[in-house]
Amino acid sequence: MTPERYRRICDTLDRRQPDLTVIMDGVHKPHNIAAIVRTCDAVGILDVHAVLPKNRARMAAGTAMGSQRWVQVHKRDESTDVIRELQGQGVQVLAAHLSDDAIEYRQVDYTRPTALLLGTEKFGVSDEVASAVDQNVTIPMMGMVESFNVSVAAAIILSEACEQRRAKGFYDQPRVAAARYHELLFRWGYA
Amino acid sequence: MTPERYRRICDTLDRRQPDLTVIMDGVHKPHNIAAIVRTCDAVGILDVHAVLPKNRARMAAGTAMGSQRWVQVHKRDESTDVIRELQGQGVQVLAAHLSDDAIEYRQVDYTRPTALLLGTEKFGVSDEVASAVDQNVTIPMMGMVESFNVSVAAAIILSEACEQRRAKGFYDQPRVAAARYHELLFRWGYA
Ligand SMILES: C[S@@+](CC[C@H](N)C(=O)[O-])C[C@H]1O[C@@H](n2cnc3c(N)ncnc32)[C@H](O)[C@@H]1O
Ligand SMILES: C[S@@+](CC[C@H](N)C(=O)[O-])C[C@H]1O[C@@H](n2cnc3c(N)ncnc32)[C@H](O)[C@@H]1O
Repeated sequence: MTPERYRRICDTLDRRQPDLTVIMDGVHKPHNIAAIVRTCDAVGILDVHAVLPKNRARMAAGTAMGSQRWVQVHKRDESTDVIRELQGQGVQVLAAHLSDDAIEYRQVDYTRPTALLLGTEKFGVSDEVASAVDQNVTIPMMGMVESFNVSVAAAIILSEACEQRRAKGFYDQPRVAAARYHELLFRWGYA
Repeated sequence: MTPERYRRICDTLDRRQPDLTVIMDGVHKPHNIAAIVRTCDAVGILDVHAVLPKNRARMAAGTAMGSQRWVQVHKRDESTDVIRELQGQGVQVLAAHLSDDAIEYRQVDYTRPTALLLGTEKFGVSDEVASAVDQNVTIPMMGMVESFNVSVAAAIILSEACEQRRAKGFYDQPRVAAARYHELLFRWGYA
């Protein structure tokens, strides 16, 4: 590994946000998954939880995810399990969802430990999941079409989270625990 | 047309922003073009200029664009012509581009007449175009990967433009000239 490469990996690890995460709840188109994971890397997310749809899309989706090196994608069976687990760790779980009781995405404090849940391309977030999370958040729509592409919605909300965290200095000093930091440094650098 | 449909079309036209536009400079993957045009609709953009790459991608790209009903996609041959034309109308042309003299995207005043230019998936914005525009703007990257997907970059910048314009009441009263408003009302409603 060149010194430049080593520096770049350390710089990235120094900016990783262990308390910001994404749950893809049934997102299955490979180009959407790829774009979401790429955006997660760019805003400093370490872990993504992927609940794959229970049908043949599973395979295609699995492929796109394997290609991701800088973000750990954890395959999960039930989104409600992931939600409860994160809530148990004190994480606020937000669903990107156009519901009546949703608040606008810029009204949220993303400097709190936060997980953002995204729904499927076709059916969005289920009622069960929408009520299991702490808050539904929505991006205002000014046009004829009723929703954004899911990777676009993810990016709009995560870029706001990134700005809030930048303003508070969250990217200015390492936030990942030492053991995990060194494990990732090894894996990214040499594996 | 039902009264509800008519109302919905009028509401959308009342929020259209004739002085906000996008230039796709060689973007050619159909799912990216589709996602960008869908985002344009959602933030109230009326017109998009598409400079198609000069090769076989032209056809695929052309297909994705024909499917767009609520945003007018103008096919153009040369991006420098579009840039000069818009500048001649007093529009600030911004290129989404990671260059040394770029400023951060949230530092821009998007309530001015604005065009946002996006580069190709593979090669980005050419040097010629980067120096023809008024300003290069960049979205900070905190990770290992060096750029966002192009439709994601478009959405992040356009959602900031949308927020600024919402805060200034730009969506609260009709801004499209009467003749064009009625032409679009007819086309969307009956054609
Ligand atoms: C294409 S949308 C799903 C549309 C689906 N027909 C529905 O009604 O929910 C896919 C996902 O993108 C996210 N999304 C899209 N537009 C959004 C918006 N304006 N606000 C919040 N989330 C949005 C949500 O997570 C949604 O489940
Ligand atoms: C995939 S990128 C092109 C990457 C290309 N290798 C380059 O160096 O420009 C496609 C387009 O998305 C936009 N884009 C992607 N990431 C961006 C960022 N961080 N800031 C501004 N624009 C970005 C730009 O318009 C770019 O031309």
